[in-house]
Order: sequence, then structure tokens, then C-alpha cells
Amino acid sequence: MRNLKSREIHLKSRPHGMPTHANFELAEVGVPEPKEGEALVRNIWMSVDPYMRGRMMDRQSYVPPFQIGEPLQGGAIGQVVAAGKGAKFAVGDYLNHMLGWREYAVVGPAAMPQKVDPKLAPVQSFLGALGMPGLTAYVGLFKIGAFKPGETVFVSAASGAVGAIVCQLAKAHDAYIVGSAGSDEKCQWLLKEAKIDKAINYKKEKDLNAAVGAAFPKGIDVYFENVGGAHLEAAINHMKIFGRLALCGMIEQYNNIAPAPGPNNLIMAVGKSLRLEGFIVSNHFDQLTAFQNEMGKLIAAGKMKWKETVFDGIEKAPDAFLSLFKGENFGKALVKVGPDKAV
Amino acid sequence: MRNLKSREIHLKSRPHGMPTHANFELAEVGVPEPKEGEALVRNIWMSVDPYMRGRMMDRQSYVPPFQIGEPLQGGAIGQVVAAGKGAKFAVGDYLNHMLGWREYAVVGPAAMPQKVDPKLAPVQSFLGALGMPGLTAYVGLFKIGAFKPGETVFVSAASGAVGAIVCQLAKAHDAYIVGSAGSDEKCQWLLKEAKIDKAINYKKEKDLNAAVGAAFPKGIDVYFENVGGAHLEAAINHMKIFGRLALCGMIEQYNNIAPAPGPNNLIMAVGKSLRLEGFIVSNHFDQLTAFQNEMGKLIAAGKMKWKETVFDGIEKAPDAFLSLFKGENFGKALVKVGPDKAV
Repeated sequence: MRNLKSREIHLKSRPHGMPTHANFELAEVGVPEPKEGEALVRNIWMSVDPYMRGRMMDRQSYVPPFQIGEPLQGGAIGQVVAAGKGAKFAVGDYLNHMLGWREYAVVGPAAMPQKVDPKLAPVQSFLGALGMPGLTAYVGLFKIGAFKPGETVFVSAASGAVGAIVCQLAKAHDAYIVGSAGSDEKCQWLLKEAKIDKAINYKKEKDLNAAVGAAFPKGIDVYFENVGGAHLEAAINHMKIFGRLALCGMIEQYNNIAPAPGPNNLIMAVGKSLRLEGFIVSNHFDQLTAFQNEMGKLIAAGKMKWKETVFDGIEKAPDAFLSLFKGENFGKALVKVGPDKAV
Repeated sequence: MRNLKSREIHLKSRPHGMPTHANFELAEVGVPEPKEGEALVRNIWMSVDPYMRGRMMDRQSYVPPFQIGEPLQGGAIGQVVAAGKGAKFAVGDYLNHMLGWREYAVVGPAAMPQKVDPKLAPVQSFLGALGMPGLTAYVGLFKIGAFKPGETVFVSAASGAVGAIVCQLAKAHDAYIVGSAGSDEKCQWLLKEAKIDKAINYKKEKDLNAAVGAAFPKGIDVYFENVGGAHLEAAINHMKIFGRLALCGMIEQYNNIAPAPGPNNLIMAVGKSLRLEGFIVSNHFDQLTAFQNEMGKLIAAGKMKWKETVFDGIEKAPDAFLSLFKGENFGKALVKVGPDKAV
């Protein structure tokens, strides 16, 4: 199309353990005309998320694996620059869709495009607090975790894209909330901006289990699990009877080469009648309206804040992705892949 | 009372790892008169159950620990031989109560006595299929496991006091049901008497995970967990999306000296949206009437069978208890501690 070129990131090889730059390849490709029902989108922002690590493996899962030599996929925000016949979107529209990792995308229904209103919030927030990570926080806390106002909540990766929203949703409903994060800077942000009750810098704690116990003298009602390993064991040890564990992710394990042992105290789930439940946000889109209403209120009241770490340029997308597993980014990791306005 | 003597089993020392006879002591004690509101009961049957191992440890739990030098406790069936003033039970009544491990018991409200009708079923079945193990099966399958007619069900320790009831409850509601047990004899009973679809002798399988996978080509909807370890890992591997795991017990772990690693595939709970939920039957007595109605129908229709392994005499109670951890007993383990009729 119009001699446009698009740069995109391909999966060059499947990671074995921690991904490296060698698993990714920058390619320059031509840009086709949008066909009937399709829209050509200039991407502005793209998201990197931990779940993408799973799709880099060749295994059966709830989403098909990425293919070698093909562009990766993921959430992105872009602006329509050309619309095919019968397309539901017009030139100039901002779309949230699933064809990230590229500068230009030909978006059809399979990319699940949704129009976003740039007047409501900076468009990239639809990849974070107002998007899938935010909805993940909402679903995990209220639906899976069955959180009730006034309960005690523990969140791991608490300053992350999901965790920070969990903290503030819980706080808005009178929770006693404790978060763990990997730096003093993150802990300070959690205390001062997200206004949680206690923050644990797990990298400084010699005994995470003791720290969690000290933070919850009466026990935990809901644990929001993003990390796995010692965090999960500590949570199980200190859950109250009938406690709920919302299993959102276990980022510690995503790059394991061999299976890691599970929590050595899972037997306590019997005696304490605990419920551990995993979930995938895409099974809970019925919660979207309730989530948006809740977030709208909290943002308007100044009770919902978040941090972003921005990587500049499509060529930095692998760096952005790798940062997720190093705890280097703060808040939502985003890649700016194009100008704010394309038309 | 009347110069009666009662023999009872005391906890002599707390087991470290697998219990031995050295942890138990047979004592002969006098029998006091029942006071106001109490009944003196001659025990006929007593139950041994895996959960009792937990009470032998000195730890905080949902039930207080047994005390050294004191008689053990547990479900028992006996007949009232004397009633104190204002007692709710009359001489000759058969009672299901919590003061087992002794020949005579002075039963007050704390022992949670319930009258049983010997015309309904052999009285000892109120310690098994019609009692706590049966209710455990019912609650775990229908309430915690949220089993729906026609689903696929996997049960470990399937010929045991709880497992055998799970199998037949599920079968009565059109389940495809597979059970694992530790001998060919138990597997044959499961196939021929409990009429399950497939039985796995886990002691003969070199690869339990492969055997479970082969038995469930379309996956497992509900796993009823009695065992832990390799059984739990195999179940998680083969659960369907939205599968439920009812965590009733993990008998493999009860005698561990050090914490054992948990399932190394718990991360799959996220991708498959699995729910693992522990439960204690005593939190679900609201299900008792529904359970009794269901069992009454199935017994009348000849669709509910169970096995008992009987140890004769109170002095054999430690043997009966130890048998639970060796897989030596078949079905419900019971101790006959007195004559069928005491008055």
C-alpha cells in the first residue's frame, strides 16, 4: 500500500528458559491494502505482558502458540489510516486490538478491535489500567477472590500493571491491604500513591514468610497471586480459614527449564478450607462494564493511579518484554511504536 | 460405676513420621456415673480415620490436638446403658458420638451424640457410608467439586471409605468415572461392585500420569483428591478447562517428617482456570438431609455398596489406625469394641 513499509518483530526461535534477544528478529515488510471489513491501523502503543511468554512455547494452551518466522501478537493501540469496504471503523478512529509487535496492522475481526475514546484517558491506558490488566485485577479480586469490603488482602507484584490496580480497588472498599514489590522505590510508591497499608520489599526480606505473618496478625482473606514460589507458600501459611487465592500468574516460573516444585504446604488447603482458583481474563469479559464503571468513579475521585515504563520504538519491544522478568520496569511496560497522530 | 472397668487407648507419645505401636497405650480405667444431661454408653464400634493423624500433632488446627496421656477421640457407635438426670437419651438407645477409642464413654453434648436407628442399616454404617465418610463424599463431589451429571470424574483411594461412595454417587448421575486403588482385588471390586468405568492399580503403573491420561482422553471435570503427590500432579495435567479439584485429604503426606514439594504443575491452574478447594466435612452439616435422602434411594435400589475391614477388640485399635497408612485395609476400617447388644 502506497509503498509503505512496516517494521515488526518476529519470533526467530523459541526461548529455552529466560528469553534473549536471539529469540527475536526485526523485519521490514510491505503493507497490504485493507480488504473488505478490514482496517489498516498505524500502531501508536503496544503492550508487553507476562502471558506472552507462554505463547512462545509450542504447546497446547488456551491460546495457540506464536509461530517461528511470524510476527508476535499482543494488545496495541493504533489509529485507522485506511478502511476497507464495509469496515466498521473510519479513518482517524483509535482502536485497541491484538496485532501489536508491528508498526502497521491490517485489522480484521480476528484481532478483536475495539474503538477507544482518546478524550476519556490517554490512549495507552487502554492497554493497562483501563484495559486487560485492569480488568484482570477487577475479576481476580472481586469474582475469583470473592473479596468483600473490609477483608484483608495480600498482593504480590503489587506495583505492577495488575497489582497496582488490585491494591487501589481493594483499598477503595476498605480492605487492609499489603503488597510486595522488588524495590524500596516501588514500596514507597505503593504506600504514598496507592495508599496501601503495608509494603514488603521481598528482595530485602531474609524471611518472606515471617514478614507476611507479621503484616497479617489476623491472617489473609484474599491473596492475589502474580509471582509463585515463596510468595505462594507464605500466603498459604497465613491464609485465614475459608481464604481465597486468585491465581493470576506465577511469573517466577515462566522461564523455568524444568518443572519447579509446587508449594510444600498445599495440604493446609484442606484444614483451612482454602480455595485456589486460576483464571484468564478473556473468560470474564462479562465484567467489563462493571469494571469500567468502577474505574471511572475512582479515577474521577483521584483514587486510582498507575505507573508506566515506556520503551521507545518497535525495535525496543524485545527489551520491553525481557524487562518483565527482571523486575526492572515499574508499573505497566509499554512500547511507543508510532506518533500520537497518524492522520 | 457398678465396679465397671473400661479399656481405652491413650496417646502415649506424639508420632514422628509414621506412627508406631509405641505411640499408643492401652489403659484400664474406672467408669464414672453419668451426671446430669449425660449418658453412659457401651461402645460397640469405633472408627479410625486418616484425619486423626493430624490431631496427634501439637499444632493449631481446626480441631484441638489430642493430649498425651489422655484417651484418643473419634467417631463411635454405642448403646446407652445408663442415663443421667435430664439426659436426652434413654437406656437402649444407639448413639453415634465422638468418644471412640474406649469401651465405655460418658457422653455429654460435647461428644455430639446423635441417635441412630439400627433398623435402617447395620449400626456401623453410620461410621462409614451413612456417616461422616459418606457425607464427606457427597459434599466433596456435589458442593466443592460442583459435579454435574454426565461429567468425567477421577477419584484417588477409590475403594476407601470415602472414595467408594464418591464413585457410586457419581455413577448414579451418569458420570464417566475412573478410580485408582492399590491392589487388583480393590480394582476388581470397583469395576464389578461399584461399577465404575475404569480402575487404575497405581502400584502397578510405571507411569501414573500416562495411565490417567489414557483413561481420560477428553480430560477430567472433577478430581476427588484423597492421596496427594503423583496423583495430584497427574490430575492437574489432565484436568479440562474449568475443572474442579475437591481436596479432601492427601494421605501420602500425613506422616511426612519434612514438608514435601507440592505439585510441580500448579501453574496449569491459571491457564486451565482450575479451582482447587479444600474442605472439612464439619463445615457442611447443612448437607446432611440431602445426603441421607440420596443415600437412602441408592441403597434401596441396590446401587450403593461398601466394604469394611474389621479389627476385633479395643486393643486392636492402633493396628486399625496404622493400617490406614499402609493401604492394607479395604473400604472402611472399623474396630469392634463391644457386643452388639449391651442391655
